[in-house]
Amino acid sequence: MQVHQILRAKPKTSIITVMPGASVADAARLLAERRIGAVIVSRDGETPDGILSERDIVRDLGRRGAACLSEKVDALMTRNLISCTPTDSADTVLEKMTAGRFRHMPVMEEGKMVGIISIGDVVAARISELAMEKDALAGMIMGN
Amino acid sequence: MQVHQILRAKPKTSIITVMPGASVADAARLLAERRIGAVIVSRDGETPDGILSERDIVRDLGRRGAACLSEKVDALMTRNLISCTPTDSADTVLEKMTAGRFRHMPVMEEGKMVGIISIGDVVAARISELAMEKDALAGMIMGN
Repeated sequence: MQVHQILRAKPKTSIITVMPGASVADAARLLAERRIGAVIVSRDGETPDGILSERDIVRDLGRRGAACLSEKVDALMTRNLISCTPTDSADTVLEKMTAGRFRHMPVMEEGKMVGIISIGDVVAARISELAMEKDALAGMIMGN
Repeated sequence: MQVHQILRAKPKTSIITVMPGASVADAARLLAERRIGAVIVSRDGETPDGILSERDIVRDLGRRGAACLSEKVDALMTRNLISCTPTDSADTVLEKMTAGRFRHMPVMEEGKMVGIISIGDVVAARISELAMEKDALAGMIMGN
């Protein structure tokens, strides 16, 4: 299964982004309102500058307490963002996420973000794919 | 694959708990220090009263801002905690987690917590299990 097939199966949502200069409190409000676990940080809504997750916020909150809330998103976000393309396989994406220990990845096509994919999306796709392949093989054996 | 097999494969760690009367700021510090995404709330370390996750904290932070930090864990935690047993299958646990949209589950045996299992642990186990079953079937076909 490829990334574009997984994206197509998701309910159509716009890509949610936050400006690098927004406060962490604003970003937390956005995560809560949109019920998402991470948000892409971007100045133009097309090119990602980084990503800010629930984890990034709680880690900084644990270290510095309430001071974290007035901090700028820019200061807390993860910058070295790993992305994928619409033709990457679910398997490749899952390996990258597991190795890098992150849960969200922008999908890039010709330099523009075309979607966000989460580990939940990929895991569901990969498990149904493996189960189907197994069933097909079992069917071949029964048919023999 | 069963839950006890997954637990056995994890690096041996004690079960981390927080008291219901601790502050959310203390809980955030614990999550950050121990690098975990959720902590079991328990008065005796054996019986879970609830669970508090990074998500619970950020959702409340988004709604109420810094006031959330001096709140008691008790007020924010998820109470209706779903647990599993050591002999539950990875498949069953994954279904419960996906249906309930949560990522951590206490493993209970004779009324006591014997471990914590995360969706990451279960997914890794389920994917390797499905891949092995598929390979075994493919081997049978090749052998025919």
